[in-house]
Amino acid sequence: MFLVEGNKTIKEIPLSRYKISEIFSVNPSELGIKEISTTEITPNELKKISFLQHPKDSVAVCELLEPVFSQDVPVQLILDGIQDPGNLGTIIRLADWFGIEQIICSEDTVDFYNPKVIQASMGSFLRVNINYQNIENYLQNSGAAIIGTDMDGENFYQFDFPEKFNLIFGNEGNGIRPNIEQLLTHKITIPRFGKSKSTESLNVSMAAGIILGQIFSEK
Amino acid sequence: MFLVEGNKTIKEIPLSRYKISEIFSVNPSELGIKEISTTEITPNELKKISFLQHPKDSVAVCELLEPVFSQDVPVQLILDGIQDPGNLGTIIRLADWFGIEQIICSEDTVDFYNPKVIQASMGSFLRVNINYQNIENYLQNSGAAIIGTDMDGENFYQFDFPEKFNLIFGNEGNGIRPNIEQLLTHKITIPRFGKSKSTESLNVSMAAGIILGQIFSEK
Repeated sequence: MFLVEGNKTIKEIPLSRYKISEIFSVNPSELGIKEISTTEITPNELKKISFLQHPKDSVAVCELLEPVFSQDVPVQLILDGIQDPGNLGTIIRLADWFGIEQIICSEDTVDFYNPKVIQASMGSFLRVNINYQNIENYLQNSGAAIIGTDMDGENFYQFDFPEKFNLIFGNEGNGIRPNIEQLLTHKITIPRFGKSKSTESLNVSMAAGIILGQIFSEK
Repeated sequence: MFLVEGNKTIKEIPLSRYKISEIFSVNPSELGIKEISTTEITPNELKKISFLQHPKDSVAVCELLEPVFSQDVPVQLILDGIQDPGNLGTIIRLADWFGIEQIICSEDTVDFYNPKVIQASMGSFLRVNINYQNIENYLQNSGAAIIGTDMDGENFYQFDFPEKFNLIFGNEGNGIRPNIEQLLTHKITIPRFGKSKSTESLNVSMAAGIILGQIFSEK
């Protein structure tokens, strides 16, 4: 089972393939889902079961599902060891925004059922396929281009994105692992316009947003 | 006074206009700043004075400075009531990345000296002018274009950004205030490519990153 918090996202679950088994709510009438067993609780009880610093209105207990895997998607994201739940949630949200159907995660990427990931995805996990598998094996058999971000890649503004590709993002601290880096068919870089060399490289989810923004400018 | 945490950022302070008055460090020799009074402390003491969930190595107490204001910058960001410290820090980091010299904040925008903002900016606050003022007055007297994001603005991919402009970002929940919205000379939108209407609009700092990414694609 996994938890989804907040009426707004909970209301979207029945529109997805996920199933709610039980709801705990401080205000069931406001949530307005009648078909599912709902227990009214106090704000204090909510505080105890919530994973949020500032608990919302309701918590839904949902059933874990077998992941869906699409063999043939034009653009998909491959995550190599993303650890921060906020980053994964944000990347799921970006995928949903840009209409990217599928994210494939290395087996050591943070679990997307982690309550912080679910929260950061703002309901977008309901609309994006998220798979965990050996991405090295997967990429070895992928016929599509494999594009990764790198400090010394080609300026992504000048890069001509192919019709079909895997876009790889690596771990927050260590980047893309060497065995995956070897499989890259292209390396791209977001150029830094500021002059200071002390400027930290962009956070991985921000880099993903900026790159996706650019890719879709051509569509 | 305000606090800066972590050796990496603390080492950059002497290269900026900011001044450290005192350092507390679990390992002063690793920090290697000799000219400033440094007290060696235990990890437990660091835990007590740190604002971070996972305290780093050192904390520097720095002097608050009068803000610097540049009258004439080609592109600047105007923040209308940003409340989340992480968002402000991320936007400062983006400004630094894209070489944007100045951010003007409404008086009710979160204080950039807030330890969470300083932390999220990853040292970038040292390299960007950040002012707080009445942005309505400021914009009324700005000769440059005033561009805001809006749900029904022009597709930003098709928008021709002028040479000189103010780019406005509004509050996380409420967007740009009506009195500021009235002053906009242009409204732009990041189009959503995903088909679901349930998809949440992008977080303000992500929107800022995607828009800046696009602006600089033309430079």
